[in-house]
Amino acid sequence: MKRIAVLTSGGDSPGMNAAIRAVVRKANFHGVEVMGVYHGYEGFIDGKMELLDLGSVGGIIQRGGTKLFSSRCPQFKEDEYQLQGIKKMKEAGVEGLVVIGGDGSYRGALELTKKGFPSVGVPGTIDNDIPGTEYTIGFDTALNTVVESIDKIRDTATSHENSFIVEVMGRDAGDIALWAGLAAGAESILIPEEEYDIDDIISRIQHGIARDKKHSIIIVAEGVMAGNELAKILKEKADITTRVSVLGHIQRGGSPSARDRVLAGLFGAKAVEVLLEGRSGRAVGIKNHQVYDYDLEEAFSNKHKADLSLYTLSKELSI
Amino acid sequence: MKRIAVLTSGGDSPGMNAAIRAVVRKANFHGVEVMGVYHGYEGFIDGKMELLDLGSVGGIIQRGGTKLFSSRCPQFKEDEYQLQGIKKMKEAGVEGLVVIGGDGSYRGALELTKKGFPSVGVPGTIDNDIPGTEYTIGFDTALNTVVESIDKIRDTATSHENSFIVEVMGRDAGDIALWAGLAAGAESILIPEEEYDIDDIISRIQHGIARDKKHSIIIVAEGVMAGNELAKILKEKADITTRVSVLGHIQRGGSPSARDRVLAGLFGAKAVEVLLEGRSGRAVGIKNHQVYDYDLEEAFSNKHKADLSLYTLSKELSI
Amino acid sequence: MKRIAVLTSGGDSPGMNAAIRAVVRKANFHGVEVMGVYHGYEGFIDGKMELLDLGSVGGIIQRGGTKLFSSRCPQFKEDEYQLQGIKKMKEAGVEGLVVIGGDGSYRGALELTKKGFPSVGVPGTIDNDIPGTEYTIGFDTALNTVVESIDKIRDTATSHENSFIVEVMGRDAGDIALWAGLAAGAESILIPEEEYDIDDIISRIQHGIARDKKHSIIIVAEGVMAGNELAKILKEKADITTRVSVLGHIQRGGSPSARDRVLAGLFGAKAVEVLLEGRSGRAVGIKNHQVYDYDLEEAFSNKHKADLSLYTLSKELSI
Amino acid sequence: MKRIAVLTSGGDSPGMNAAIRAVVRKANFHGVEVMGVYHGYEGFIDGKMELLDLGSVGGIIQRGGTKLFSSRCPQFKEDEYQLQGIKKMKEAGVEGLVVIGGDGSYRGALELTKKGFPSVGVPGTIDNDIPGTEYTIGFDTALNTVVESIDKIRDTATSHENSFIVEVMGRDAGDIALWAGLAAGAESILIPEEEYDIDDIISRIQHGIARDKKHSIIIVAEGVMAGNELAKILKEKADITTRVSVLGHIQRGGSPSARDRVLAGLFGAKAVEVLLEGRSGRAVGIKNHQVYDYDLEEAFSNKHKADLSLYTLSKELSI
Repeated sequence: MKRIAVLTSGGDSPGMNAAIRAVVRKANFHGVEVMGVYHGYEGFIDGKMELLDLGSVGGIIQRGGTKLFSSRCPQFKEDEYQLQGIKKMKEAGVEGLVVIGGDGSYRGALELTKKGFPSVGVPGTIDNDIPGTEYTIGFDTALNTVVESIDKIRDTATSHENSFIVEVMGRDAGDIALWAGLAAGAESILIPEEEYDIDDIISRIQHGIARDKKHSIIIVAEGVMAGNELAKILKEKADITTRVSVLGHIQRGGSPSARDRVLAGLFGAKAVEVLLEGRSGRAVGIKNHQVYDYDLEEAFSNKHKADLSLYTLSKELSI
Repeated sequence: MKRIAVLTSGGDSPGMNAAIRAVVRKANFHGVEVMGVYHGYEGFIDGKMELLDLGSVGGIIQRGGTKLFSSRCPQFKEDEYQLQGIKKMKEAGVEGLVVIGGDGSYRGALELTKKGFPSVGVPGTIDNDIPGTEYTIGFDTALNTVVESIDKIRDTATSHENSFIVEVMGRDAGDIALWAGLAAGAESILIPEEEYDIDDIISRIQHGIARDKKHSIIIVAEGVMAGNELAKILKEKADITTRVSVLGHIQRGGSPSARDRVLAGLFGAKAVEVLLEGRSGRAVGIKNHQVYDYDLEEAFSNKHKADLSLYTLSKELSI
Repeated sequence: MKRIAVLTSGGDSPGMNAAIRAVVRKANFHGVEVMGVYHGYEGFIDGKMELLDLGSVGGIIQRGGTKLFSSRCPQFKEDEYQLQGIKKMKEAGVEGLVVIGGDGSYRGALELTKKGFPSVGVPGTIDNDIPGTEYTIGFDTALNTVVESIDKIRDTATSHENSFIVEVMGRDAGDIALWAGLAAGAESILIPEEEYDIDDIISRIQHGIARDKKHSIIIVAEGVMAGNELAKILKEKADITTRVSVLGHIQRGGSPSARDRVLAGLFGAKAVEVLLEGRSGRAVGIKNHQVYDYDLEEAFSNKHKADLSLYTLSKELSI
Repeated sequence: MKRIAVLTSGGDSPGMNAAIRAVVRKANFHGVEVMGVYHGYEGFIDGKMELLDLGSVGGIIQRGGTKLFSSRCPQFKEDEYQLQGIKKMKEAGVEGLVVIGGDGSYRGALELTKKGFPSVGVPGTIDNDIPGTEYTIGFDTALNTVVESIDKIRDTATSHENSFIVEVMGRDAGDIALWAGLAAGAESILIPEEEYDIDDIISRIQHGIARDKKHSIIIVAEGVMAGNELAKILKEKADITTRVSVLGHIQRGGSPSARDRVLAGLFGAKAVEVLLEGRSGRAVGIKNHQVYDYDLEEAFSNKHKADLSLYTLSKELSI
């Protein structure tokens, strides 16, 4: 290969820029050029791209977001648009593609590969919900943002002896809630993967009050229910008044953590290696502490599983 | 005076601990003991307090919240409870009081003074809304928290080319919204002090889009309306889709900024000086860059005014 | 005026980008174009500059450093080079200049004005040492960086019960040391403006130990002496072992604080106003909490004075 | 077991408090009491300890340093003192010990076990240099502190087009230098594990200059040489002027990252489990992404190996 392309797709995550940089530099190291495709698959269809040289990825390793922009592109599900994009790419001498994004983005990469355009997926999403990899790029940063926010909320919770509900991201995956809850010492954590037990939540709050600890923090993943809804339930069932904080979009931004940047470097470089070795339809990931690549299909056929031992541990530590 | 007391009251703010520390150390420097009253005026009524020595205020200068806890205490408006508290204090040899809090808390301090118990107010609130002082303790920290949050939101706004509405604290005072909007380069800022012009807001967004800038940030103080409400108006009036982020209680917490800690040091020390000089019924503040004290009554009879030149400037810079 | 220029000069400081942005946008608001001159006076001499439109200053308000680069340019002291630069500027239709930098940079601005090229100075330096203004752009950010660093050092100092010497920037001005020392609760502060009393420093450490407080923090401005030198003195005079931390260049970088960004906005806009009003040879500053402009010459004829009441206060609070 | 003890030993690291909390709460969950031993093995010898109940470890999960203090205790190498400590412990009904610290601290734990006092080691050190575990508590936080510092240094390096040498901790282990260098996009990284090639370092700087990139960052682990020494070599060999920043003790402090807190929770809990299962002389660690325990002896007989694939990757990405 003489020239490949890279794009970012789906929800953005901190570290995507570091991954783009790694793709460009690793490819350049092997004498391969990299085109940066703008706006995800939208730009792929239209051939909206630009050559990324070493200088163009200078000074981005520490930046949140993605300099290539991202988008969700429903029309890319259609063969017609995929083929149009492949044509544009081939005309520009592009022979392979690195897609940085979530599992939705992986489907596109698989389709392209099947249609003869070698593509590789790099897991970039704050949700940490891609099957086949222990971590995704952006999760660690989001986690730290959430934990720092809860630390702030705890200041005021402690001072006023209030109970707080903190709603965090995670529609289907409880990783952010789980890790953040454990790291922040939350009294209860509600995740989509586990039935919550409202009586247990209530009893933990009351138990705390009994031992003169008058504040508590409850983390709820948005996929379980809205923070306000939980507040209503607690009020109705046990007359417990809580305040609700919805962390929202601050979870997606920010300068990537060291860990996310290193992961982005490893994954970006691995993706280039896979392409240059003539393989495709692969996703890169980390498993047993080892960077590796696996069939893109596995990312759909399997389901991400949160580490539920953390859930148990959290319950034991928040007695 | 041989012994004074200090309490924190109303909404907590970062830097309250630094102010407590300053009161204790400044008083100790002059050979005066300090009792720490717990839970604001509630503890004052019940005489719930403890001697604060040098060691007890060690390691708190950098901590958010207040180690003395805070509360809102409606019953303290009644003479009976005020007198009960004064009695408790006098029994414990306490001869004066420093109240760290907002202007609601100042009323209590004035009442106590009128009833013969010398009290001085120190402005501690993130809202920066106390008449007579350019800055309150906690404002600078809250401001930085808001600005850092908007920086994160901008990462994702830029990557996805979305418009964001960020709802910040400020029921009656627009200071947080105003300063944060200017510091974060927001396209529009809505504050309680000024009528907003929905057509101007819309035209700024559309103007940005016209010059190929597809994201924008709108800051709204909670006192104007909820972020969701504004989103609805923009959708209905101009079919503009926005995302809403409500920053909420993270604005109250966090380690105080350098500025807030210095202010806390200056104000806490000044309050002790005022008491030791035999004066009372005073509030400390900063005016024309000078720490001074003024009549507590001024804090109610006057109304805080946000610096509206910042509002004008913001409009000029966000063209 | 139809077109002006802006440059950054001398040591860089956080908020310079926000000031550049304010100059561009304020000028644009008044229909005036702005050229960005690269590498300070070096680029001025060579006419190395570029038109800065609204988009070119997008997304820089939160960035440390300066997108126009900075340099120290000794040759600019010579008339010949000043005149050459003015010629280049006039050829490009540039009619005035905003210089963002320290007082060294102000001399150039004054020379240019005297030679018929209207120039205005904006105080950008972390040292806070420009006569005529209470604050300079970058000081607040540097201060927070220093205080956060000391907070970290205190963690380990407390855990190991060590004494630490922290060397901070400030050759002639003690502002960083003074404010940071007060904000971080340092036991002793050494600044260029005041003779230090080594016996007092020693006795404070020993006094702390006597009351079972086994760690202490001493801040020394580099202008007084190197941290290592102080450590040697303490060892020799009183057999006190200390560890030394030289904060160094991290003090110059980082995303500007909210305060510095607001100041940058105010100062940048004011500088443009001054030029458009046909005035020049002026510096902008803040005095008595009011943005104003004053004769550039005052910035040399006067000497910056640190607020020594903070010094006294710090001694009283660190008993 | 009805009662165990916990102590922190050696250099402190962020997350030690979170580990103490986990030990206490996990033990309490199983109905076992925990005594907190002060000042590491020093306190063990003297029986200086206190019962830690749930409340006593409240609000410490986010704090840097260690609330139990730490120290290096050379005399603990002697049997006599070990036996004295064991006696004190047994008198107080303590039946087992969790030691949080580096591998130096592990030796003590092994000696105690051999003398009949069951002890377990938890890896707490920023250096990440304990054989048998992929990560140690504190490494991730230190790494982020270093990377954030380099980000700040880069701001000023870029603005002034300077080259910087950043000296980081790591006497024998290059993990901090390696990970931070990769995460910060350093041009060269010098670690104790690999011979450095001064010509390669020089050529990378010159190569950068040739492609108009006038700043660069070189990371050197203290175990290789001092930053100043490297600066001298670069000056002498290639007339390259660099600035040096020694990050020093800020690397040890700070609120622990989310990752370090989770690790602390997992490790602290695992250590208690091991003791309660009647096993001892074990260290807890993480291997292949799995928390496990292994023979304490392995931590000495083996040597920690940095992941040198990161070294190769860094060279490829910093072309």
